Amino acid sequence: MDDYEAIRALKARYFRLMDTKDWSGFRQLFCDDVVIDVSGSGGEVITGADVFVDFLTDRIGPAVTIHHGHTPEIELLTPTTAQGIWAMEDRLTWPDGTRVHGFGHYHENYEKVDGSWRIRSQRLTRLHTDFQPGDSS
Amino acid sequence: MDDYEAIRALKARYFRLMDTKDWSGFRQLFCDDVVIDVSGSGGEVITGADVFVDFLTDRIGPAVTIHHGHTPEIELLTPTTAQGIWAMEDRLTWPDGTRVHGFGHYHENYEKVDGSWRIRSQRLTRLHTDFQPGDSS
Amino acid sequence: MDDYEAIRALKARYFRLMDTKDWSGFRQLFCDDVVIDVSGSGGEVITGADVFVDFLTDRIGPAVTIHHGHTPEIELLTPTTAQGIWAMEDRLTWPDGTRVHGFGHYHENYEKVDGSWRIRSQRLTRLHTDFQPGDSS
Repeated sequence: MDDYEAIRALKARYFRLMDTKDWSGFRQLFCDDVVIDVSGSGGEVITGADVFVDFLTDRIGPAVTIHHGHTPEIELLTPTTAQGIWAMEDRLTWPDGTRVHGFGHYHENYEKVDGSWRIRSQRLTRLHTDFQPGDSS
Repeated sequence: MDDYEAIRALKARYFRLMDTKDWSGFRQLFCDDVVIDVSGSGGEVITGADVFVDFLTDRIGPAVTIHHGHTPEIELLTPTTAQGIWAMEDRLTWPDGTRVHGFGHYHENYEKVDGSWRIRSQRLTRLHTDFQPGDSS
Repeated sequence: MDDYEAIRALKARYFRLMDTKDWSGFRQLFCDDVVIDVSGSGGEVITGADVFVDFLTDRIGPAVTIHHGHTPEIELLTPTTAQGIWAMEDRLTWPDGTRVHGFGHYHENYEKVDGSWRIRSQRLTRLHTDFQPGDSS
């Protein structure tokens, strides 16, 4: 499996393990000191894979989530570093019926650690978000 | 074209030929004794490509269908066998206005038969399904 | 990067540069004499990359657009020509609230010009389109 295939498979697992709530498998996809910047969609900048997984479990754990990624633009920079841009769409439904439906792009860096590609940084930009309030709103 | 490309192209044809209702082309994508398990989304377990195509023609033939697949995780097991997981989204609209809109994953096995990859088995798991009744409901 | 990767990256940029309105970058993705046939979705046949970019800026410039492409079927014909089919979904929202949400396939030809793959022709076929009128309708 070449580096393009391996990075695509990494991101494929990112989406599947998040949406099936396999948080321990999900944790393994990141460099320990990953930087996640979701400030472009009302979030914050988070440093550290454990902190990020805690944040995410708290934020979307109770929701049904569907995250899809499309048409990656992957660029290999060195034998152990790469960058990529992914188009994305996400749908989140909370128990009270609140729905968020968004579109945008992930801008990411990857690093090959002990032979496996991991996510080194992520920044999310948004094209559009639809919001539908739930019962408790 | 390497095996990853060929298996992606096989699944791409699966989606396109189903949604454009090219059932004879669609039939060619499967091993004769394919096993299709859609019990996770209210269906059943079907054995045999001809039986599956008959089932599908009957079930979704009159509907406008849109099936999209995303971020495959393909693993080559032997020179002639492979497995894959695909994220999926489908939208079905029946003549009476009934709409089903679902999300999930295909878990599949592939086999190389006479130089061409085919689908050997498929199991569909669902994350979420939205249902909108039509006029006759 | 092999030709399959390069053509996928070309189309990935097509979607991203259109939706982020980077029209000068978008222009570079096409052969000068590209033929764009959107007659299948209420449009026309347009010849020439400059004419097409003018048409598009005029038509969707004020709208928020999200175009996603899926499961390409790419075939290399000669060392410098190729063809591809992409499943697609697009969402367009105009300032007055008008929304168009469509599904279909791009049928394309590509040509390698000075070492870079470009889009040589495009024909769009539609499976389904939803239309939601805006305030001014």
